[in-house]
Amino acid sequence: MKNAIVGQSGGPTSAINATLRGVVQGFVKRGGTVFGMHNGIQGLLDEDIVNLEYLKGEALTLLSKTPAAHLGSCRMRLPDDLSQPVYNKIFSIFEKYNIGYVYYIGGNDSMDTVDKLSRYAKINSVDVCIIGVPKTIDNDLVLTDHTPGYGSCAKYVAGTVCELDLDVSVYTKPSVTILEVMGREAGWIGMAAALPKYLLGRGSDLVYLPEGDFSCDKFLSDVEKLLSRQNSLLVTVSEGVPAYERVGDMDVFGHAVSLSGCGAYLSKMVKERLKCKSRAVELSLTQRCAGHLTSRTDIEESVRLGEFASSLVGVEFNGSMVAMVRKAGDVYGVDFTCVPASEVANRVKKVPVDFINDEQNFVTQRCIDYVSPLIVGEIDLEYVMGMPKYLR
Amino acid sequence: MKNAIVGQSGGPTSAINATLRGVVQGFVKRGGTVFGMHNGIQGLLDEDIVNLEYLKGEALTLLSKTPAAHLGSCRMRLPDDLSQPVYNKIFSIFEKYNIGYVYYIGGNDSMDTVDKLSRYAKINSVDVCIIGVPKTIDNDLVLTDHTPGYGSCAKYVAGTVCELDLDVSVYTKPSVTILEVMGREAGWIGMAAALPKYLLGRGSDLVYLPEGDFSCDKFLSDVEKLLSRQNSLLVTVSEGVPAYERVGDMDVFGHAVSLSGCGAYLSKMVKERLKCKSRAVELSLTQRCAGHLTSRTDIEESVRLGEFASSLVGVEFNGSMVAMVRKAGDVYGVDFTCVPASEVANRVKKVPVDFINDEQNFVTQRCIDYVSPLIVGEIDLEYVMGMPKYLR
Repeated sequence: MKNAIVGQSGGPTSAINATLRGVVQGFVKRGGTVFGMHNGIQGLLDEDIVNLEYLKGEALTLLSKTPAAHLGSCRMRLPDDLSQPVYNKIFSIFEKYNIGYVYYIGGNDSMDTVDKLSRYAKINSVDVCIIGVPKTIDNDLVLTDHTPGYGSCAKYVAGTVCELDLDVSVYTKPSVTILEVMGREAGWIGMAAALPKYLLGRGSDLVYLPEGDFSCDKFLSDVEKLLSRQNSLLVTVSEGVPAYERVGDMDVFGHAVSLSGCGAYLSKMVKERLKCKSRAVELSLTQRCAGHLTSRTDIEESVRLGEFASSLVGVEFNGSMVAMVRKAGDVYGVDFTCVPASEVANRVKKVPVDFINDEQNFVTQRCIDYVSPLIVGEIDLEYVMGMPKYLR
Repeated sequence: MKNAIVGQSGGPTSAINATLRGVVQGFVKRGGTVFGMHNGIQGLLDEDIVNLEYLKGEALTLLSKTPAAHLGSCRMRLPDDLSQPVYNKIFSIFEKYNIGYVYYIGGNDSMDTVDKLSRYAKINSVDVCIIGVPKTIDNDLVLTDHTPGYGSCAKYVAGTVCELDLDVSVYTKPSVTILEVMGREAGWIGMAAALPKYLLGRGSDLVYLPEGDFSCDKFLSDVEKLLSRQNSLLVTVSEGVPAYERVGDMDVFGHAVSLSGCGAYLSKMVKERLKCKSRAVELSLTQRCAGHLTSRTDIEESVRLGEFASSLVGVEFNGSMVAMVRKAGDVYGVDFTCVPASEVANRVKKVPVDFINDEQNFVTQRCIDYVSPLIVGEIDLEYVMGMPKYLR
């Protein structure tokens, strides 16, 4: 039996290691050996490879509760030209380690890598099956109901909104608190901020997503209207809300970076134009690595999806990304399937128009129906001397 | 038996409601009736008063797990001149509600209020006993080993540092992440960021507190030195670290406000001077209201301290603040005592010099010995539809 190698790529999440656990335990169950590449394809090229046999028993359990990327990550784009020497180098390393299965856990950029490697294998008739396994807090991958990592991020945002709502309400002096969450091009994370208000009656009063129509004047008018009825206001904005003209660098995949700051910008505007106390809170990195507040639904699905990936045998799965399909009916559940990584690569799934209300300042019932099951359940986390116990 | 009234004042914490629970259940045990003033002394003046009889059973349990300030808060400074009419008004309201005991839960500014009201009572021979009950995440009150609310904030900071450390380590590209935590004048919160590195071997590599000697050149040299040995660096700074000259408004108590931003400032400096990728993360409001990650030690002590306050009978306790004294010996524990609120009011307790290392860029064993017991233990929090269940 050929060996497997697994890598992680792109930004950290609280569930990417749960997926790693699934891949490892699934493949080991099949009787195989699993190697790990440190720092994704970049480490692979340096032959920075480790036998993952140490990931068993307690370490495996702990792994699935540990945020970030246990194997390290990278942001590296392979060349479009498959005749470049880098491909030959990669596949010679696969050969050296007798690799027959490659599992690459990542987002839409990583699926670009999966697509390219799988095409190289096909064209050159190499017996290596390259399979993509999705992860991203951004939830912006097409052809899957949602992505591992998203549910935990959504839960963290919703929980934090519950707490900020309590915090900002303690004073009688009118104030506007603006919470900025991640989401450059899509508002999936931002919409989770609507859950507390919708389901528990209190939370973020206004929610603005990049997919909605946005103007600063309408924003100020929304804020002003609510301030006439209540003292304190909690507003959530995705970082990609077009509050101001963007200037800035591009990342290696051609995405604009450093968009953060629209919360601070809007807060300043509230102070100046409405003469009202205002502050911005930027969740920043904590929303993608808060292992102490993850969704059990997310973590369990992530493990199962990894296991599913490692169960796929046959050349027909080369170039696939495993994906989740939501079951029909009232009881939430998912089935697993395969989709072409090429169709996921470099594409962004936006929040559907009917998830946003007519006023473009909150979400709809359809949105709540979609996101609410994904944050359900908590995991048992151990603490050491008062701090979360993670695998290091 | 005369009635009691309780108020909360100053910034929210995760434990101020636990103290409220202690006061209420302690006084009710004595057979008395407890009223609450909404928004502290400010609401009292508007006679915004509620009978707290609804705080029993499950509501009382839930209250102690709910962050922020259940009764609302205020920032209001009473005049120094005790002959001002506001005092007469306050005590006529006390008389109307047959109040014999006033419990005011807050920080050093609130102890100013306790001191003034208690002096008025004494001078005018009014039979009302005014007792201060400490709370502040800042831990900067003198005459108490530590303050309720601090342990939970310290635990949140330490836990977040564990997670950020995992997050920032996933890439091989050199990077410096600067975590800015609260602490204008004192570094109590900041020093909690040292716990993971000290006790678990990984975490914030450098920690700068307002009490230490700080210069930007030394900071850059510290960062540069560590970057020669490791790829990613996590640095924690208190917001009050003198990275740049302060200009800004004062609050009503004469404190400088809006100091936040030193993390962003230092991050920009790292980028420019060291040509290294850098980002700043500001914990902002979440560190004072993260009810989902509180210290059981803190929450339990806060309840007990509130109960202790409500057990004090006798005119000699007028003008006291209840306080905690750490027991001698190896096993952590506290005793409760009373100190004059007048000596706590408007003063700030700084981090001792011997808590900071010689290099002025980390903490010492003495610091760890002090803070580590305060973050121990977790509370059982219920979740509703995936979100923390709080009392509203």
